[in-house]
Amino acid sequence: MSLINNLSTSMISSSSSAFLAPTSFNSSRTQNVSVKSLRIVKCITTPQEQQTAYKTKVSRNANIAKLQAGYLFPEVARRRAAHLLKYPNAQVISLGIGDTTEPIPDVITSAMAKRSHALSTLEGYSGYGAEQGEKALRAALASIFYGNLGIEEDDIFVSDGAKCDISRLQIVFGSNVTMAVQDPSYPAYVDSSVIMGQTGQFQKDVERFANIEYMRCTPENGFFPDLSNVGRPDIIFFCSPNNPTGAAATREQLTRLVQFAKENGSIIVYDSAYALYMSDENPRSIFEIPGAKEVAIETASFSKYAGFTGVRLGWTVVPKQLLFSDGFPVAKDFNRIVCTCFNGASNISQAGGLACLSPEGLEAMQEVIGFYKENTKIIVETFNSLGFKVYGGQNAPYVWVHFPGRNSWDVFSEILEKTHIVTTPGSGFGPGGEGFIRVSAFGHRENVLEACRRFRQLYN
Amino acid sequence: MSLINNLSTSMISSSSSAFLAPTSFNSSRTQNVSVKSLRIVKCITTPQEQQTAYKTKVSRNANIAKLQAGYLFPEVARRRAAHLLKYPNAQVISLGIGDTTEPIPDVITSAMAKRSHALSTLEGYSGYGAEQGEKALRAALASIFYGNLGIEEDDIFVSDGAKCDISRLQIVFGSNVTMAVQDPSYPAYVDSSVIMGQTGQFQKDVERFANIEYMRCTPENGFFPDLSNVGRPDIIFFCSPNNPTGAAATREQLTRLVQFAKENGSIIVYDSAYALYMSDENPRSIFEIPGAKEVAIETASFSKYAGFTGVRLGWTVVPKQLLFSDGFPVAKDFNRIVCTCFNGASNISQAGGLACLSPEGLEAMQEVIGFYKENTKIIVETFNSLGFKVYGGQNAPYVWVHFPGRNSWDVFSEILEKTHIVTTPGSGFGPGGEGFIRVSAFGHRENVLEACRRFRQLYN
Repeated sequence: MSLINNLSTSMISSSSSAFLAPTSFNSSRTQNVSVKSLRIVKCITTPQEQQTAYKTKVSRNANIAKLQAGYLFPEVARRRAAHLLKYPNAQVISLGIGDTTEPIPDVITSAMAKRSHALSTLEGYSGYGAEQGEKALRAALASIFYGNLGIEEDDIFVSDGAKCDISRLQIVFGSNVTMAVQDPSYPAYVDSSVIMGQTGQFQKDVERFANIEYMRCTPENGFFPDLSNVGRPDIIFFCSPNNPTGAAATREQLTRLVQFAKENGSIIVYDSAYALYMSDENPRSIFEIPGAKEVAIETASFSKYAGFTGVRLGWTVVPKQLLFSDGFPVAKDFNRIVCTCFNGASNISQAGGLACLSPEGLEAMQEVIGFYKENTKIIVETFNSLGFKVYGGQNAPYVWVHFPGRNSWDVFSEILEKTHIVTTPGSGFGPGGEGFIRVSAFGHRENVLEACRRFRQLYN
Repeated sequence: MSLINNLSTSMISSSSSAFLAPTSFNSSRTQNVSVKSLRIVKCITTPQEQQTAYKTKVSRNANIAKLQAGYLFPEVARRRAAHLLKYPNAQVISLGIGDTTEPIPDVITSAMAKRSHALSTLEGYSGYGAEQGEKALRAALASIFYGNLGIEEDDIFVSDGAKCDISRLQIVFGSNVTMAVQDPSYPAYVDSSVIMGQTGQFQKDVERFANIEYMRCTPENGFFPDLSNVGRPDIIFFCSPNNPTGAAATREQLTRLVQFAKENGSIIVYDSAYALYMSDENPRSIFEIPGAKEVAIETASFSKYAGFTGVRLGWTVVPKQLLFSDGFPVAKDFNRIVCTCFNGASNISQAGGLACLSPEGLEAMQEVIGFYKENTKIIVETFNSLGFKVYGGQNAPYVWVHFPGRNSWDVFSEILEKTHIVTTPGSGFGPGGEGFIRVSAFGHRENVLEACRRFRQLYN
C-alpha cells in the first residue's frame, strides 16, 4: 500500500472517529477563535471570545510580553501589505528590509545542485553533519577570512545565519548579564536580550528597555560611542560596518573598543556581516585588533555577499582564548548550545559556502558586492543632490538619510504614500535612529534608478 | 581589483600591523591556551594556564553549568572516536545516533537541484523567505498530514528541524514553567529545559534534575506513564512513536493524555517525528484526539522520512486555539520567536520538502521508510532469537533491548569493544532507560546484517 493510501486511510478514519466521538470536554472547543494571517494582523480578543475559549493554566512568558509591537521588519512588511491593499496597482519598490535581489552566481548554485544530486547516490549521501559545520568549510573560512589572525578552524562554528547565532549566543549568556548596544542598532540584539530576560520593562518616555546600555551613535561622535560615558556591561553588541548607519569603525576606534572590553572584563559580540562592503582601510575583522581574541566573538554571514538570504549560511568565531570569569572557555558552552539547540546548517547550503570560497566563487561574490555598492553610490548621490545630509554608503550597503526634527515613521509613511517606496524608519533601530531613514541598496538596478527618480520628484 | 586581492591585501596589511604594533595589553595574550578538538576533549585547565590566561568578568551561565557531561550523541561519538583510535582497522558499524544512511530519492533531490539552479536566474531568485516557511509548503503540510483535522496552513511553522524547534519552544515558555518528560526520552527536551533555567541542579543519587517531572515509561506500564502519579506540569513533552523505546501510544492513551492536559491546564509538546513508521492503527497526530488543538503543539520532521538529517527541514504546528492563561495565543509568541531568533529554513530544503509531498515524493518516502522498517524487523528477530526481551521496532525505527540488571554504559562498552558496533546506552535517555540499549535501524542493509551476525556471535 502506498504512503498516500496509508495517509488518507489514517486521516479519514482518525478524523471521522475524532469528529463522530466527541468526548466530554469537546464542548469547550471553540472553532470560532480565529487569528488569521498571523504576520499582519495584531491579536485582538473580543470579550465574547474570552468567555468561550478554553485557556491553559500556563502563564505567558513575561519577558516576551515586554517586547514592543512586532519585530521591526515584519512590522515594515505589514505596512507594505496594508499599502498594497490601499493601492493595489502601485509599483511598490522595496528598499526596506535589506533583502538581496540579484541572482546567485552560477559557480555557487552549480555546487549546490551538484551536492543535491549527490545526495541521491550511495557515495554522495550524507546524514547528520557535525553541528559545528563541515571541516572543509570551517578550514576555508579560517584561511580566507582570518588567514594570519590566529583564528583556527575549530574556533569557527558554521550556522544558518547571523540572526540565528545571535539568539544562540544569548542562550549561552543567559538572563544574568548586562548588555550594551549601539543606538541605533540591528533590532535582533535588543529583542533577543529582552526575550532572555536580561532587561527591564520598556520605558515609553525614553523609548528604551531598562537595564540595557544604549550607546548613542550619531553624526556628532562619528557614529562611534563615547565609551567614557558607558557603564560596565557584560556583553557589548557592536556591528561594523554598521547596520543601519553604514558607519565603519576605524582601527583606532576598534582598538579603543577592545581596550574598553579588556578593562571592564566585557565580551564583545562583533557583527561583521557587511565586512566585504568596506571601501576604506578599516579592519574587516575584530580579530585584527591585538588582544581581541580574549574579549571578542565575531559573527558573519554569506547573506549579503552571495545572495544567501534565502539559502541560509553564516558563521560565528568563538576563540578558545575567550574565558568566563571562572576560566571556563566560552567556546565550550557555545559548542554545547550548538549541539543541543541546533543540528548544523543544511549540507547543501554548506556546499554553496565552500563554492563561495573557491577562487571563482570569491571573484563572483566580489561582483555581487560591487553591484550593490554601485547601487549605494546612486542612492547617496541622489540624496546629496537633493540637499540631504547622508551618512553610510561608503562601507556598507545602507544609506542613512537625515530628516532633522522629523519623526522617522512619519517620513517612512510619507515616502511610502507618495512614492510607493518602502524604506526603514530609523527609530525602528532604537531611539538614536529618530530623524533618520535607512535606505537599502539591495535592489535591481532599474528599481533603484526608478526609486531615485521618485525621491527626486518628492523632495526636489 | 578582485575580492581575493582585496582580501589578501587586507589580511596581510592588517595582520602585520596587528602583530607589529602591539598595544599595552598585548602582553596578556596567551597563545598557549589550547582547547583542541572541542568535540572530543573535555575542558582541562591546568593551574599554570589559570595563572596566565586573561579572564573576562562575565559569569558563566549557571543553568548551562548544571548540564551533565556532553549532550548524549556527541558523547557517543566521542567514545566511537576513542574506539577507532584503539582499533584503527576495526570495521565499526554505527547503529547509535539514528542517522539516516540511504540516498534521498531522485524526485526529491532533483527538485532541490532545480531550485538551486533557479537561484541563478532573475525569475527564480528569492531572498529572505517568510520566517514561517513558504506558503505552498505550509499548505501541502496542512493538507497531507492534517487533512481533516482542522489544522490550517497558518498553524504550521516550517523549520530547520524538530530539535531546533524544541529549543525555540523552550524560549517561548521561558524559565518560569514546570516540565514533565517521559523517562526515558530524547535528551533535547531535558537539556533545553535545564538550559532555560526551568530546573534545579542534577541530583546524582537519582540521576535526575530537580523540578522536572520524570514520567516513568517501562514495559510494566506499556511505556505509557501512570498519569495519576504525575503532578501538574505546565509543559508535557511527549514523543510517540517514542524515541528511544519505539513504543507508540494508542488512541485511548492519547485521549487520556489530552484529558490530563485539559484538566491541569497543561500544554503538550507532541513529537511525532516518527509518525510514518507506525504499523499499528494508532494516531499519527495528536490532533486526531478531540480537544487537542486547545492543549497541544506538534513537532515533526522530514529527517527520518526522506533522509533529510543533513538537509534540515521540519515543521511545528501551533494551533491558534492554544492559549496561555491570560488568553494570549501561544502561536503569536511562537511566531515572534521564529521571526526574531530564526530566519526560515533554507529555500532549497523547502523545495525538497515540497517535492516530498508530491504524489511521487510520497511514494518515494514510503520506500525509504519501508527499507528501514525491514531493517528493524531483522534486528528485532535477531535479538528475539537470542532470547532477549525486545521492545519497539513495530512502530518506530528503534529497537529497545532489555539487559535486566545491567548498566547501560557497560553494555554499550561491551558491545563496542567486542563487536565494533555503536549503539546508544538507554540510561543516556534518562534513569528510566537504565538496563536497556537502543539499537537504531538506520543503516545499509549489509551493515545491519553484519551487525546482527556479530550480535549472534557475542550473545549466542
